[in-house]
Amino acid sequence: MQRTVFFISDGTGITAEAIGQSLLSQFENIPFNCVTIPYIDTIEKAQDTIKQINLAFDETNEKPLIFATLVNPKIREYLEQSHGLLMDVFNAFLNPLEKELQLKSSYTIGRSHAVSNYEHYQNRVSAVNFALACDDGIGTKYYDDAEVILIGISRSGKTPTSLYLALQFGILAANYPFTSDDMPNLHLPEILLPFKKKLFGLTINVERLHAIRAERRPNSTYSSYKQCEMEIKAVETLYRRNQIPFINTTTFSIEEIATRIMASLGIQRKTLG
Amino acid sequence: MQRTVFFISDGTGITAEAIGQSLLSQFENIPFNCVTIPYIDTIEKAQDTIKQINLAFDETNEKPLIFATLVNPKIREYLEQSHGLLMDVFNAFLNPLEKELQLKSSYTIGRSHAVSNYEHYQNRVSAVNFALACDDGIGTKYYDDAEVILIGISRSGKTPTSLYLALQFGILAANYPFTSDDMPNLHLPEILLPFKKKLFGLTINVERLHAIRAERRPNSTYSSYKQCEMEIKAVETLYRRNQIPFINTTTFSIEEIATRIMASLGIQRKTLG
Repeated sequence: MQRTVFFISDGTGITAEAIGQSLLSQFENIPFNCVTIPYIDTIEKAQDTIKQINLAFDETNEKPLIFATLVNPKIREYLEQSHGLLMDVFNAFLNPLEKELQLKSSYTIGRSHAVSNYEHYQNRVSAVNFALACDDGIGTKYYDDAEVILIGISRSGKTPTSLYLALQFGILAANYPFTSDDMPNLHLPEILLPFKKKLFGLTINVERLHAIRAERRPNSTYSSYKQCEMEIKAVETLYRRNQIPFINTTTFSIEEIATRIMASLGIQRKTLG
Repeated sequence: MQRTVFFISDGTGITAEAIGQSLLSQFENIPFNCVTIPYIDTIEKAQDTIKQINLAFDETNEKPLIFATLVNPKIREYLEQSHGLLMDVFNAFLNPLEKELQLKSSYTIGRSHAVSNYEHYQNRVSAVNFALACDDGIGTKYYDDAEVILIGISRSGKTPTSLYLALQFGILAANYPFTSDDMPNLHLPEILLPFKKKLFGLTINVERLHAIRAERRPNSTYSSYKQCEMEIKAVETLYRRNQIPFINTTTFSIEEIATRIMASLGIQRKTLG
């Protein structure tokens, strides 16, 4: 039986998941059975949760691991009675924080991830609209406002990355594609020249690109190994020749691609403090 | 001077930000000056970071707060020498975790958020493609595959929510709009009838909707208070009459809207364990 892992929160559970995944990834070859239980904001829900934890303990004969973000101290204390190993962020850090700030915290349930700052929420929604209006080479008239313009060939990850930059960080990200028509003598299109400092290139391994494209259009020129190889060689040459920073998306998560681009271009989050 | 807060990581910094924001939101009226420093994966970068922390200490005469996810114990120990208050997730939880699992963790830098699972990465990218193919009432022929179909009037948050469900959780989310042409005698369109169990409604406060629409199209019927009020009343009646679960997006973050929808419909994450 796989060991059960619970991500428990009186809010969304997203922070608990991130912490847990981050820690579990340090134990590489163990398979875990992960369960998220968000919005545990009443004693009744906490009781049901304890039952679920103890059931997992009985079934596996191993202590379930619990990564928690429980703002409400009563619910936290209550969950400490389960047969699992409780690792709670608030329990670990709220005390030192209160001491340093010389203040008691407000145990407002669900304050975290709430729209405590309406401006941040609007930044994110506007950025999503911008990313959609400037997806795949459209909306070039808005490029003045863009903070980054991602460039790359088809299926190298431009659209998911633009949308992630928008949703997670409120960043205005456009993206512009290079197609087979631009090959093999690829050069920087005139429309992009005034925005050279905002350009960031994506590339990808030939094998991966070939596999992704073959799933979309099997047995096409578009997905052929030769075509993929040629297009990748052409864009990478373009990036180097024009000194455009670029990243190979093959082994990175969307989070990593996005944050590395921001670090490289010095773009600040629009969703913090 | 505002107190400085650092989110420091040898990875993306996203988990450190989430933890820090979550904890800081418990101290409501204090303004913080937040700085994220990701990819601190060498002693040289750690040295620069310590300088930055100590400079903030000198400027503000207050200990900077540091929320960290540092996998590498050498870099963590090194950062403990700064003049800030270091709160590190790995330091807090790795020891109890190693004891319970009776294993030593692999201090692989940047394993967290890496594409440790290519399947998860592909789930997310496919889900983004699905959300775009089924945005705003298009792609109804794919509704069989949808896990949720968000419904609502213009500017109630359908598109950002669909994309967040896709990017964060790999969930196949479509969205279908109701327009002024459907009003005032709004009824459930025939195309949606076979998918009633997948429907989830969004609504919004009149004042907020009026403000958002007025920014897009000032002095239009579309943005008038009266029109907004009428459309909201019509959708909410539709939701109630057809027993469609719904959420008012006005006071929630995108994270909360998404996770509450998942909890309500019993949709599982495609990006865990």
